[in-house]
Amino acid sequence: MNEPATAIEAAVAASPLHQLKDELDIVIPTIRNLDFLEMWRPFLQPYHLIIVQDGDPSKTIKVPNGFDYELYNRNDINRILGPKASCISFKDSACRCFGYMVSKKKYIFTIDDDCFVAKDPSGKAINALEQHIKNLLSPSTPFFFNTLYDPFAEGADFVRGYPFSLREGVSTAVSHGLWLNIPDYDAPTQLVKPLERNTRFVDAVLTIPKGTLFPMCGMNLAFDRQLIGPAMYFGLMGEGQPIGRYDDMWAGWCIKVICDHLGLGVKTGLPYIYHSKASNPFVNLRKEYKGIYWQEDIIPFFQQVVLPKDCTTVQKCYIELAKQVKEKLGKIDPYFDKLADAMVTWIQAWDGLNPTSASFSNGKTG
Amino acid sequence: MNEPATAIEAAVAASPLHQLKDELDIVIPTIRNLDFLEMWRPFLQPYHLIIVQDGDPSKTIKVPNGFDYELYNRNDINRILGPKASCISFKDSACRCFGYMVSKKKYIFTIDDDCFVAKDPSGKAINALEQHIKNLLSPSTPFFFNTLYDPFAEGADFVRGYPFSLREGVSTAVSHGLWLNIPDYDAPTQLVKPLERNTRFVDAVLTIPKGTLFPMCGMNLAFDRQLIGPAMYFGLMGEGQPIGRYDDMWAGWCIKVICDHLGLGVKTGLPYIYHSKASNPFVNLRKEYKGIYWQEDIIPFFQQVVLPKDCTTVQKCYIELAKQVKEKLGKIDPYFDKLADAMVTWIQAWDGLNPTSASFSNGKTG
Repeated sequence: MNEPATAIEAAVAASPLHQLKDELDIVIPTIRNLDFLEMWRPFLQPYHLIIVQDGDPSKTIKVPNGFDYELYNRNDINRILGPKASCISFKDSACRCFGYMVSKKKYIFTIDDDCFVAKDPSGKAINALEQHIKNLLSPSTPFFFNTLYDPFAEGADFVRGYPFSLREGVSTAVSHGLWLNIPDYDAPTQLVKPLERNTRFVDAVLTIPKGTLFPMCGMNLAFDRQLIGPAMYFGLMGEGQPIGRYDDMWAGWCIKVICDHLGLGVKTGLPYIYHSKASNPFVNLRKEYKGIYWQEDIIPFFQQVVLPKDCTTVQKCYIELAKQVKEKLGKIDPYFDKLADAMVTWIQAWDGLNPTSASFSNGKTG
Repeated sequence: MNEPATAIEAAVAASPLHQLKDELDIVIPTIRNLDFLEMWRPFLQPYHLIIVQDGDPSKTIKVPNGFDYELYNRNDINRILGPKASCISFKDSACRCFGYMVSKKKYIFTIDDDCFVAKDPSGKAINALEQHIKNLLSPSTPFFFNTLYDPFAEGADFVRGYPFSLREGVSTAVSHGLWLNIPDYDAPTQLVKPLERNTRFVDAVLTIPKGTLFPMCGMNLAFDRQLIGPAMYFGLMGEGQPIGRYDDMWAGWCIKVICDHLGLGVKTGLPYIYHSKASNPFVNLRKEYKGIYWQEDIIPFFQQVVLPKDCTTVQKCYIELAKQVKEKLGKIDPYFDKLADAMVTWIQAWDGLNPTSASFSNGKTG
């Protein structure tokens, strides 16, 4: 091991956030050897990994030495969930949500295997997980916008005119991180701007206001499983399904309306990871085109969803959402009937693996 | 004139945004000589200034040579508005809104006289006005959050999952800039954190989502007078009034609900100015304490304001808002009755000085 890595390891070990190693799992969906973990070693090695192997289960995935992990392939998923395994996508990174379900920890960090450690403008390697933990452990402020961004960041606070009654904030359920280098563009934008790279380092974390939806990307994402886990379902994508690349979007729309209803916060901004490889825009276009078309109806649907007051748990909210998806989106395409059923199956499977969480009441209803 | 200033002037003159010099006025409220303009000379000298002199009208305000300006003191305001001058605050920087009213230009940039040119992280002087103009001339995206911030910024775009039907955006009415060095804190925060300085340069502009209120600071602010001018009233503050330091906040709440109703955009973020001097927290506490208390009711009021569909102009929206302020906030304190009346007087005065704008229909009603 070379010197810089040791120095980083020492810094990581000294951090109080390191203590979260017993409370956080890292979920990685993959179809290949996990060589990318070498670069993350100083930051992620203390944590437990849940690897969800997509595609051919007979293939062997190599994990670098020294990492503590469990690995599930399709056979494992089928064995563990039985007929309910139908809610877990195949041949799509949406399968990652199986890892959320089998985890027993309070927090999840999920990352794609083409994401590397980014550097801040001073050239320092960014400890993405540490920033996610900071985001999750400090409150969110969804009810009023703070113009100096995260009021809990070092050197910042609430500005003049911010109501004092709202300064306590609410619990943070989701921390959405960003990407330097290859931006998360859709296929049409990839085709139009093949050479665009994201080089803008925006030194901010902010709460996405209540009532506002956002495009949640699953590449660099952390969340509190106890607060929002059962809503973090990545839908039906990939083999046998008419769309792909909307798994994280679907989860993002669902978690946002449920967080808004339960009075939980969603943050976006720091940390950055370095996204190394643009996916093939032609393949992406095939996967996305129905999603691009359907989202014009899906987003207005989510913008007007109202959850009844008696939906006081994430599970109840999610079952109610599934019902409304069937009613309102079912007319767009039979796919949404199937998706609504899968949402219900997902909750049954979640509760089966997490029996004590089923009756958990989270946050405030509002 | 020294070399660097000449170099900056040449760069400013070469900018296409320089062309806006016939369409933009700079409004400065002041009680002292405007020496601070020396530092701004390369950026602001091409523009026309409207100086609103607060306090003793017999005092002479010195303006550095070479600036093109008109100056109004209290005697001028009384002469021009007659009895309607009662809506313009005295001994408070809220008087600046008189400058918005007498301008005949499409755009306004207003700046405080303790604000200096800030530097970006590379050490380059920030042309705040140029950034405001960029913000105002590019669309806003209030209906859905873009995680890479302003999609119209260089090197950025809409991310995957952003609905294509919303990518055209809406017209931008307001550009709210930020402050390095002394942050815009209220008196309690100033007292608790007297030494806190803002050193975080956040390289982003973002649209404040529809339905979300924010604390608008008047220190470094630009707007499109044609789109939103009649709502940019800074209220009754200062001498004879029970509160101060809520002038810009009041305007911010009003313009935001009206922009949301009319389908116009409000941006915040870049540009930064360098705010040099913290005001006295003890004086501020005296001015603010009722505002701090009242805002706990005012903000819920603005969060639930609904403007009827037939409010299709800013003026109609504003008159309706005044009516609701009287009805709903009048019970908190008689001050709000007086303020509601002043809001109506303001619109009458505005329309008197801007006869063609009275029937102007702006944006879309939504």
